[in-house]
Amino acid sequence: MSDLKAYLKQQQRKVDSALRRFLPRESVHPTTVHKAMRHSTFAGGKRLRPILCLAATEACGGDAGNALRPACAVEIVHTYSLVHDDLPCMDDDDLRRGQPTTHVVFGESVAVLAGDGLLTEAFAIIAQTPECRKHKTRDYVIELAHGADSRRLIGGQIMDLEAEGKSLTKAQLVRIHEAKTAALLTTSLRLGAMVANASPAKLDALTDFGRNLGLAFQIIDDILDVTQPTEKLGKTAGKDAAAEKATYPAIMGLATSVKEAQRLTTRALNALKPFGRKAHRLDQIAHSLLDRDY
Amino acid sequence: MSDLKAYLKQQQRKVDSALRRFLPRESVHPTTVHKAMRHSTFAGGKRLRPILCLAATEACGGDAGNALRPACAVEIVHTYSLVHDDLPCMDDDDLRRGQPTTHVVFGESVAVLAGDGLLTEAFAIIAQTPECRKHKTRDYVIELAHGADSRRLIGGQIMDLEAEGKSLTKAQLVRIHEAKTAALLTTSLRLGAMVANASPAKLDALTDFGRNLGLAFQIIDDILDVTQPTEKLGKTAGKDAAAEKATYPAIMGLATSVKEAQRLTTRALNALKPFGRKAHRLDQIAHSLLDRDY
Repeated sequence: MSDLKAYLKQQQRKVDSALRRFLPRESVHPTTVHKAMRHSTFAGGKRLRPILCLAATEACGGDAGNALRPACAVEIVHTYSLVHDDLPCMDDDDLRRGQPTTHVVFGESVAVLAGDGLLTEAFAIIAQTPECRKHKTRDYVIELAHGADSRRLIGGQIMDLEAEGKSLTKAQLVRIHEAKTAALLTTSLRLGAMVANASPAKLDALTDFGRNLGLAFQIIDDILDVTQPTEKLGKTAGKDAAAEKATYPAIMGLATSVKEAQRLTTRALNALKPFGRKAHRLDQIAHSLLDRDY
Repeated sequence: MSDLKAYLKQQQRKVDSALRRFLPRESVHPTTVHKAMRHSTFAGGKRLRPILCLAATEACGGDAGNALRPACAVEIVHTYSLVHDDLPCMDDDDLRRGQPTTHVVFGESVAVLAGDGLLTEAFAIIAQTPECRKHKTRDYVIELAHGADSRRLIGGQIMDLEAEGKSLTKAQLVRIHEAKTAALLTTSLRLGAMVANASPAKLDALTDFGRNLGLAFQIIDDILDVTQPTEKLGKTAGKDAAAEKATYPAIMGLATSVKEAQRLTTRALNALKPFGRKAHRLDQIAHSLLDRDY
């Protein structure tokens, strides 16, 4: 196993164990909603966002142990957004991370409420993050709400739904990707940095890294949706084309999309320069995202 | 107009004006979700929860101006929960506060996302509440998440859905009412008190008041659903019986339900004694809730 793979595995384990501690147990009354909340959270996610959060703390010279709460909070926000996006009235997807989606297992009403429960829990969890000299509870909560709000994470899903069947310009597509994907990735990185008492300059650098990484990540995701089979994706392949979603490959073709992902990844890597060797893991992760099979 | 009516009107105006300031404008991109968020928030609610929050600040000798953020946050949480509860996959209600519900006007997917947007915004708003000596941002955020979480507000809706068509004991029904209604009323009061630097004894007294008021309030709501026409309720009358919901009137009959609401209101009023004259408005509100037409 490569050095990076071992690191990712180890970080995933840390995050999973913290998520298990922070979320209400399945036995808590009413059990249905807590079973659904844990089902969706422990359905085999890669934990990219929390791992970026912890790696950002390391890049800023902080103790990643202090970043476990924000790391779990962003993963829980990501999970709730998937549960709601998969609903029949939204993207109507039966499969996610190779597992039946929450509404398939528990029914639609429980899936809506489990998503609501996860979002609420994320704020309870992040509010208990240790404060540091520069950054207080208020900053953490506002940062999380910022990445997840109706202009960004939720706004991206609205724009995505509204774009179905329409032809978009590249600028319009970038705006959707910024909101839907780059915003929460950036929030994950910024929260990790904040726990490490990061300066405004370092926060700006990670914002730049997060934006470019997020845009590259979404383009690669859209490419994989076209080129990979369902078994490998863990979610229904070819959904974007079927739903007439606006994607990079659809607008600009596969070859240009690959080049654009490479260009954005290079920009992301450049943003890491001020951190030197400490950003080693962020650098590796950015490379590995670009090198997924496509 | 009675003195109380004028007070309520004045407080509603304060809350409405603060909500208008705190929520994203309709012109903010993507506009659909922001229109839906404001549609549901400004559909003629009585603002009971924020008014209780402001009155609790006054009862604890604080400046109600400092409580506007928590007051608006609880109202926004209440609004999001109505938007989601009214969805076709939940209570499937077309009418709320005399207006077509959010999913009727904007479609189901936008209603789900508008609810998510409101919940997220509530935490951004409360995180900016002024701190006082005893209570910090962390306490406010945790208190809001507590009242709204999967054991309480969301758990109550789950229990309510699961109870449909089943016969419940009085204890089971009380448990649902505590979660679905009393918890967020109590949170509203406690947040108002916290802003006023309230002692643990005062927080306990308001918790006692909130629990009993909340239980009385829900019983009265269930009575009105049986006895009042749709035009007067502003929501579809007789829905509880149609959905085979467990309610006090269904289990214990109308006369016993009225007596139980009176008994709980008396207990609520007793809890206010330590506050003396300062709890004048809370006292009046409790009386007025009992005296709604039924």
